[in-house]
Amino acid sequence: MPNPTAAMLVIGDEILSGRTRDSNMNYLAGELTKIGIDLKEARVVSDDREAIIAAVQALSVAYDHVFTSGGIGPTHDDITAECIAAAFNTHIDVRDDARALLQAHYDARGQELNEARLRMARIPDGAALIDNPVSTAPGFTLQNVNVMAGVPSVFQAMVASVLPHLVGGAPLLSQTLCLMRGEGDVATPLSALAADFPDLSIGSYPFQRDGAYGTNIVVRGTDGVMIDAAMTRLAAEVGT
Amino acid sequence: MPNPTAAMLVIGDEILSGRTRDSNMNYLAGELTKIGIDLKEARVVSDDREAIIAAVQALSVAYDHVFTSGGIGPTHDDITAECIAAAFNTHIDVRDDARALLQAHYDARGQELNEARLRMARIPDGAALIDNPVSTAPGFTLQNVNVMAGVPSVFQAMVASVLPHLVGGAPLLSQTLCLMRGEGDVATPLSALAADFPDLSIGSYPFQRDGAYGTNIVVRGTDGVMIDAAMTRLAAEVGT
Repeated sequence: MPNPTAAMLVIGDEILSGRTRDSNMNYLAGELTKIGIDLKEARVVSDDREAIIAAVQALSVAYDHVFTSGGIGPTHDDITAECIAAAFNTHIDVRDDARALLQAHYDARGQELNEARLRMARIPDGAALIDNPVSTAPGFTLQNVNVMAGVPSVFQAMVASVLPHLVGGAPLLSQTLCLMRGEGDVATPLSALAADFPDLSIGSYPFQRDGAYGTNIVVRGTDGVMIDAAMTRLAAEVGT
Repeated sequence: MPNPTAAMLVIGDEILSGRTRDSNMNYLAGELTKIGIDLKEARVVSDDREAIIAAVQALSVAYDHVFTSGGIGPTHDDITAECIAAAFNTHIDVRDDARALLQAHYDARGQELNEARLRMARIPDGAALIDNPVSTAPGFTLQNVNVMAGVPSVFQAMVASVLPHLVGGAPLLSQTLCLMRGEGDVATPLSALAADFPDLSIGSYPFQRDGAYGTNIVVRGTDGVMIDAAMTRLAAEVGT
């Protein structure tokens, strides 16, 4: 059975302006790889209602799971929750369970749960809350879309809350052979190897180090014995 | 007149598996911001023919410029060039101008321009070459799609080759106010500010530092005087 598929949607002007370098996609990719869910696509869109809705709808239909980051805070530019509700034509309002979490959080700190903070308790009907052990304000899962915060520490905590509930597949294993030769020197044996091992993904990643050309060859798949066989042949053919 | 728009397409299994953290998108975003081209969307897809073709076609229609990274090397998993040709229903083969560049490069190093390396001279009909001062193998521009390498040093050199040929708009300016207060404390004045300055984009980015909550407020726009006015009001209302 093929692994479940996933897509990520990063939401935020700050990523597309270059001000902030996204780190959540790389984190999620690594976590999904471990549990055998294949991240097939990622998109970044700005804090734009139509863009968010269109991306959520397209990805939700195309993949088993969708993960979003960003835009669920208390300020005017945090519009993700209402866009998710709109994407699924679902009602959204402050929900008692989320409000109770925030009320307890701010009460304990002697702070006011003001109107802005209450925005973080707006949850679409039918959504399940995602636990946020870092800063309390919850994410949520609506249908196959998991809506999480953009702050990396919070995003990572929410991923840890969500992933145990998902059914994974075969973890993607990989081995890497690092050669201090250019890609063009090894392309022919690599191509033959890829043809002989159609169930493996064989990637070739060139780099330059101290002025010399090198290539990392990465063999990926779910069958460790098969990967071993491919790596053994590769090392014999192109050296180490 | 609104600024020209752009999208980026990052191509590569290694990004989606979490093995490699993409840095090209952040670099391109910063360079485009400087010359007034608005990066509106980014996508990451795997080394999959149908996925690449579909993304290129969708982005090419939706935005003024498209920039791709990855998949133009000599190995079997480098399929970007043929996918771009297919996306535009254009013929692709080894082209004399690109072959001459590679021949001179490998001749000078006493290396063979073998069949694998010759793959890097395959250029769609009608495309213009993009200069690669780092490692010679060229990128290309076909219609509004600029096809560039994934290795960051080469990607950056190709961006430097391409951008002077594009007509930009008004550079996006920004100022940041860093507050050691939570977002929820400043959301109401921020929202009023955003309503009073509809031509500015006002973003709010929370962080935690040494256990304390802070917020970076970023005001972006193309009119420096207007940004100054907004920042002055903001500082008066929420402190510094």
